[in-house]
Amino acid sequence: MTEKLVMLGQKAQVAANRLALLKAADKNAALLQLAADLINHQDEIITANKKDLANATDMPAKFTDRLMVTPQRINDMAAGLRTIADLADPTAQIDKGWVTNDGLEILQRRVPLGVIGIIFEARPNVTVDAAGLTFKSGNAVILRGGKEALQTNIALATILRNSLKEQGLPADAIQLVTDTSHQSADEMMNLTDYIDVLIPRGGHNLIQRVVKNATVPVIETGAGNCHIYIDKDADLDMAAAITVNAKVQRPSVCNAAEKLLIHQDVAKKFLPVIAKKLIDHGVQLRGDERSCSLVPTIHPASDEDWDTEYNDLIMAVKIVDSLDSAIDHINKHSTHHSEAIITNDINRGRYFQQAINSACVYVNASTRFTDGGEFGFGAEIGISTQKLHARGPMGLQQLTTIKYEITGNGQVRH
Amino acid sequence: MTEKLVMLGQKAQVAANRLALLKAADKNAALLQLAADLINHQDEIITANKKDLANATDMPAKFTDRLMVTPQRINDMAAGLRTIADLADPTAQIDKGWVTNDGLEILQRRVPLGVIGIIFEARPNVTVDAAGLTFKSGNAVILRGGKEALQTNIALATILRNSLKEQGLPADAIQLVTDTSHQSADEMMNLTDYIDVLIPRGGHNLIQRVVKNATVPVIETGAGNCHIYIDKDADLDMAAAITVNAKVQRPSVCNAAEKLLIHQDVAKKFLPVIAKKLIDHGVQLRGDERSCSLVPTIHPASDEDWDTEYNDLIMAVKIVDSLDSAIDHINKHSTHHSEAIITNDINRGRYFQQAINSACVYVNASTRFTDGGEFGFGAEIGISTQKLHARGPMGLQQLTTIKYEITGNGQVRH
Repeated sequence: MTEKLVMLGQKAQVAANRLALLKAADKNAALLQLAADLINHQDEIITANKKDLANATDMPAKFTDRLMVTPQRINDMAAGLRTIADLADPTAQIDKGWVTNDGLEILQRRVPLGVIGIIFEARPNVTVDAAGLTFKSGNAVILRGGKEALQTNIALATILRNSLKEQGLPADAIQLVTDTSHQSADEMMNLTDYIDVLIPRGGHNLIQRVVKNATVPVIETGAGNCHIYIDKDADLDMAAAITVNAKVQRPSVCNAAEKLLIHQDVAKKFLPVIAKKLIDHGVQLRGDERSCSLVPTIHPASDEDWDTEYNDLIMAVKIVDSLDSAIDHINKHSTHHSEAIITNDINRGRYFQQAINSACVYVNASTRFTDGGEFGFGAEIGISTQKLHARGPMGLQQLTTIKYEITGNGQVRH
Repeated sequence: MTEKLVMLGQKAQVAANRLALLKAADKNAALLQLAADLINHQDEIITANKKDLANATDMPAKFTDRLMVTPQRINDMAAGLRTIADLADPTAQIDKGWVTNDGLEILQRRVPLGVIGIIFEARPNVTVDAAGLTFKSGNAVILRGGKEALQTNIALATILRNSLKEQGLPADAIQLVTDTSHQSADEMMNLTDYIDVLIPRGGHNLIQRVVKNATVPVIETGAGNCHIYIDKDADLDMAAAITVNAKVQRPSVCNAAEKLLIHQDVAKKFLPVIAKKLIDHGVQLRGDERSCSLVPTIHPASDEDWDTEYNDLIMAVKIVDSLDSAIDHINKHSTHHSEAIITNDINRGRYFQQAINSACVYVNASTRFTDGGEFGFGAEIGISTQKLHARGPMGLQQLTTIKYEITGNGQVRH
């Protein structure tokens, strides 16, 4: 372990101890000031971002679009911080309390996790977003962004840290790892003495690397091979509207649908209609043998397709014999993020919700609703696809843990 | 990965899918039958246990005592299963529900984790205990006990599996890894496709090995370097009673106190009294310089002592200048399990509870109460010393996760 990262960890812990004692009102005032200071210093952010963009001239347009920071995007980041200031402070909450047979009073209090590590890729807005959410929940954060956004991230972190300092708050509540080597990432994943939880945000490869290498507890996020299943009793107009929405409204995000399963009883009627609609929206369709023979514009899918998250205008289609074979297929190939059934049969809808092993299971709605904002959490730090600690959209509450405070008057155990 | 462990994992998942659909009443009836069958087959258990004991003749008495199974201990195991049958089923619970702005109905339902791996050492009662708790919460379990208890564990697992089978339930809900090599443990720690969470139960070395090597999410349990701090405003009779109880009532367990910190203002009065009491109970005392000079029967402590969990009749004593230095010492050296302050000052008590970074923080009570049974959870699978997912005593609820079931009538996202 390099000394530098250990020092970062130690400073984060000291800051976390102070943050844990801050009142909600003080944190909210600080967040509003952070938002104001981002806008006050927007020129510095844009100047730094231009350096990153100049280094990224040979990257695809999709990539540089994510990387680019504009005055509008800085306004959005600031607005995000103000939204976080408006949310309830989860650490002001006592979940429950009870008295034991021995007369001990036990309070289950909600407290910050401590130090949160975030490893992410090219989107600089994650820096501000993650800093705001961790700060509001009383946690210190160690951020490690991708090397492509390094100058922008340094500018953002510097502004946020200076703002905290000027407010008499610990600047080390927000720290950025500026060494963007693989080695620094690996070290961060093993900083068990200082980091309480690591949340990777990015593509499949990043997340798998973190899961494989980290000894710090990890929350897996964001992989979404989401399915829409059209049941034999579906309202086919609704089925078409939901499928189109889930696939094309924003194909690059994790809650977009990647697979379409259709019950054989409605395939002949539904598939030609939905295929035309999707193709008209620029979607490339890949299908199993039965789909391809029904609609010749569908390309043959490979075995790999069923496990692939495209994040693009591509969708694979499969005709299934029954509700159970749809469920089996989904439980086998899904990343356990979000799946939907379209059906008018209440029993089949409930059975699907019960049998599917994913964080969010929909009846008659688009998978695109899996989102902290849409769920009413006010914000989100990511969407957990694991079962431990957090599952589905993670808001402020998921950045906390509990502590038992037990008060007695001399009780001993017999 | 060996084929054998993958097969175990696959079978566990199939069993888990069935368990998740069982009703509480059916699980409870099954648990009562498992209890009856343990007693019906007690001779087989004791015969197998004798083989393990015969192989353990050169182990210390403490070890063979843990390993030994008697008719009384089989009765206790069966009683444990009946207690679990009486507990509420957490997976019958819907935590909450709400309607979003788009008119989606969201239910947050509690569901089993899926497949739970338990790696443990010599106590065969863990086999029955863990099988009962995981079964009741709807999870399949893969158990891997120590090689010293292998014959006993095989007998226990066989009886439980046969009992499930005779009841028409999936025997693979309870599986035992009979290959007790290090390699099989390492493989189990990386069975990410099949095991949802791994809970190691045992000593420090086992737990650290699991934390370091596992890619499966882990819940760290059981390390308890617990502190009692005697504040300057303490009731010293209460302080002595609690210290003796926390140290000597059952020194081998994780919630026993290992360290005694005393405020300097009361050290001269308190330390000679408590030292005599502890030594009379057979405790060896090790102390910092000030303690040793106050009470000559105290041996000098080494730096290592402050980080050591003795699990034995040993206690290290330190005189501190202030409440804050007690807190700093504890936060630095504790395993974050359980700590207590003895004080009559309400503000100092509350400050201690707030500033100490441990799962359970006591005012005026013995650390020995950190226990699922004492907390009123009815049973426990372990005591978590990490912050993610579960913290402190883990009951049935901590063996579950959530699932969002979302129902709409055609909603799409704009």
